[in-house]
Amino acid sequence: MEVNVTGRNIFYAQSGGVTAVINATACGVIETARKERKLGKVLAGRNGIIGALREELIDTSLESRKSISALRYTPSGAFGSCRYKLKSIDESRAEYERLLAVFQAHDIGYFFYNGGGDSQDTAYKVSGISQSLGYPITCIGIPKTVDNDLPYTDNSPGFGSVAKYVAVSTLEAGLDVASMAESSTKIFVLEVMGRHAGWIAAASGLAKDRKDSPPHVILFPEIAFDKRKFLRKVKDTVNKVGYCVIVASEGAQYANGRFVADAGLKDAFGHTQLGGVAPTLVDMIKDAHGYKCHWSVADYLQRAARHVASGTDVEQAYAVGRAAVEFAAAGKNAVMPIIIRNKGKNYSWRIGEIPLSRVANVERKMPRSYISKDGFGITPKAHRYLEPLIIGEDNPPYKNGLPEYVRLNNKLVKKKLPDFVI
Amino acid sequence: MEVNVTGRNIFYAQSGGVTAVINATACGVIETARKERKLGKVLAGRNGIIGALREELIDTSLESRKSISALRYTPSGAFGSCRYKLKSIDESRAEYERLLAVFQAHDIGYFFYNGGGDSQDTAYKVSGISQSLGYPITCIGIPKTVDNDLPYTDNSPGFGSVAKYVAVSTLEAGLDVASMAESSTKIFVLEVMGRHAGWIAAASGLAKDRKDSPPHVILFPEIAFDKRKFLRKVKDTVNKVGYCVIVASEGAQYANGRFVADAGLKDAFGHTQLGGVAPTLVDMIKDAHGYKCHWSVADYLQRAARHVASGTDVEQAYAVGRAAVEFAAAGKNAVMPIIIRNKGKNYSWRIGEIPLSRVANVERKMPRSYISKDGFGITPKAHRYLEPLIIGEDNPPYKNGLPEYVRLNNKLVKKKLPDFVI
Repeated sequence: MEVNVTGRNIFYAQSGGVTAVINATACGVIETARKERKLGKVLAGRNGIIGALREELIDTSLESRKSISALRYTPSGAFGSCRYKLKSIDESRAEYERLLAVFQAHDIGYFFYNGGGDSQDTAYKVSGISQSLGYPITCIGIPKTVDNDLPYTDNSPGFGSVAKYVAVSTLEAGLDVASMAESSTKIFVLEVMGRHAGWIAAASGLAKDRKDSPPHVILFPEIAFDKRKFLRKVKDTVNKVGYCVIVASEGAQYANGRFVADAGLKDAFGHTQLGGVAPTLVDMIKDAHGYKCHWSVADYLQRAARHVASGTDVEQAYAVGRAAVEFAAAGKNAVMPIIIRNKGKNYSWRIGEIPLSRVANVERKMPRSYISKDGFGITPKAHRYLEPLIIGEDNPPYKNGLPEYVRLNNKLVKKKLPDFVI
Repeated sequence: MEVNVTGRNIFYAQSGGVTAVINATACGVIETARKERKLGKVLAGRNGIIGALREELIDTSLESRKSISALRYTPSGAFGSCRYKLKSIDESRAEYERLLAVFQAHDIGYFFYNGGGDSQDTAYKVSGISQSLGYPITCIGIPKTVDNDLPYTDNSPGFGSVAKYVAVSTLEAGLDVASMAESSTKIFVLEVMGRHAGWIAAASGLAKDRKDSPPHVILFPEIAFDKRKFLRKVKDTVNKVGYCVIVASEGAQYANGRFVADAGLKDAFGHTQLGGVAPTLVDMIKDAHGYKCHWSVADYLQRAARHVASGTDVEQAYAVGRAAVEFAAAGKNAVMPIIIRNKGKNYSWRIGEIPLSRVANVERKMPRSYISKDGFGITPKAHRYLEPLIIGEDNPPYKNGLPEYVRLNNKLVKKKLPDFVI
């Protein structure tokens, strides 16, 4: 293990929902940092930012080169992630002070936060506060979200692989229902993620290679759900094609903002609990038309499906991790690497950057021009945007029939501070 | 196209729920028949046996060698399948007579029925009836079922690929929930197929490589569901491991035979409509313990997932198709090719045969010795049985990020008989 200890250490944390390729980003961070003489070790937060608050820091320098390299093809968050949002400095001063105390105790000069919009906001806040509290930290946000709703970047690492999973699944299940439709199942509904933005559902449209092939109906959160229009479209499709494949965002909603899947349940934090748009739609269709229906809820399977990851996505996920280290070594601060699509007929991309101040709390929805006029499909423009993001296969190695994913040792650095209860 | 027309034609039909590899069987039938001088064309039923009754016969000799070869990696039923069971001769005499009239009109001397238990029963009936009606037909059953519940054969083509899909998905989703559990999701429930037999759910157990790794709870139809015991096991697992991954058969049921997923719904045929054991279990767990839960229903995705098919399964599916032709050419009748596991430490297999009279309507459930003592897992014996069936990757070719599955032209032979209404 060649570990460089000439510079200050990096704190790297994974945040929010994990993806098939967030560990590829970690791989990019760690492999690049190991080669970078100006930087010290990469210390990873155990369960994300919670690890910093609890002073539970994983010493990645103790992992073999082979294990780190295997992160590139291992899904989920190898160090643990979390759903934990730091509030404003006024509300959570103690937490920010604790964070900086831990950073100081472990000679951490760089904070890499790998997550979505909320995490970029936190990285931005830490950057400002560390200045005002007299312990300046270099903060780099690293983009990650299956929802593809981060602004400025052409796409978000994690999305391309979900998109590929959803497009492949729609293609495969579509062939299945087509062969059953004459005497049995006529309707198949696939529920996918995307509470506020319909990018994931949109990706199913890539499976449509002929006018009448699936998916026949896509439901986006951006388009108000109209039950009558939906049921008519389903019936027309069955009459014309013989069957109907529907892909629905979990966030599909009525014009008044009520989720189609909303059964009135809320979680401990008062958030509406979703995850039933598929069975809800199936009930509607059975009631109205009496067709035999099947439905699937992909849930975690879609974002964990490293076995069918997009090669483009894996490369980009690695590249934003590498870029974070390069930015830090170059003295940049409060920025996030982004993916820029180059002009030209053939798809190519490069890494750019954007100040965190501009990223924080901006959500990018599907443009109306990406959704077909009737609201049930994607346009050729959307197809051109989406297709390159799912291209390329990057299969993990297999052993005994299963992908050989790595699990790290995750040894913690010795604590130096008193406990802190979060 | 080298098409041999020296012998009588084969009627080939796909039946029941389709699989990731039933077209590999069709490929085995057609490629072998094209080389076999004693046999004529393969005419495939459009939508299975319905195609025979309606005289909708697909002339596979019009498909290119390349298209037929692509069936090997194309999921679902390329000619259409059906759920249509011929009744006894007393109840459905007209249907049997029609079947034989169509066979006679198109010089069909061989009936290949590719399906599960019901289909083997039909093939057996046709065999007997064709003798008594004076138009003897050679009937060969070809095994297919994701449920793995056919008797005598070591395993059923179609099962190995679902097993691989379920094991891979459990592994991947398990890593996901493990990385979220500290501050968010602690429970993940995956619902899989298997109404009467727990083979598919059992396959998830292949993902368990350490004592505490997922799946932590498997629910089999063969083991009476005990709510109290289940909820205690879930809580104990969360306390010990930090999270709990549950894989549930759609057919999980209480001691009195009521399905866990039974919400009182019935389909047009009076069959109980299932497909909600995952959300039902999640409701129980939330009520009892308050954990944050996620759930997934794999449904058609699992049996259509050719992109992650088992190499062993693909080979066996092809082999039973080839064997059907070889049996027919050798003059065998009323038999089904089966897969026999050879003795010895390393897995190997060969094709054998069994009379249809013995297969019909026998259902093979999981032996108790394959299920762990507490009823929530699989034994090492089950592991040894299951593992070879998921080994090997047999990826389809990809184009523009998606598998390049074939769709046949499916040209029908000219009708010679009057219409028949089914």
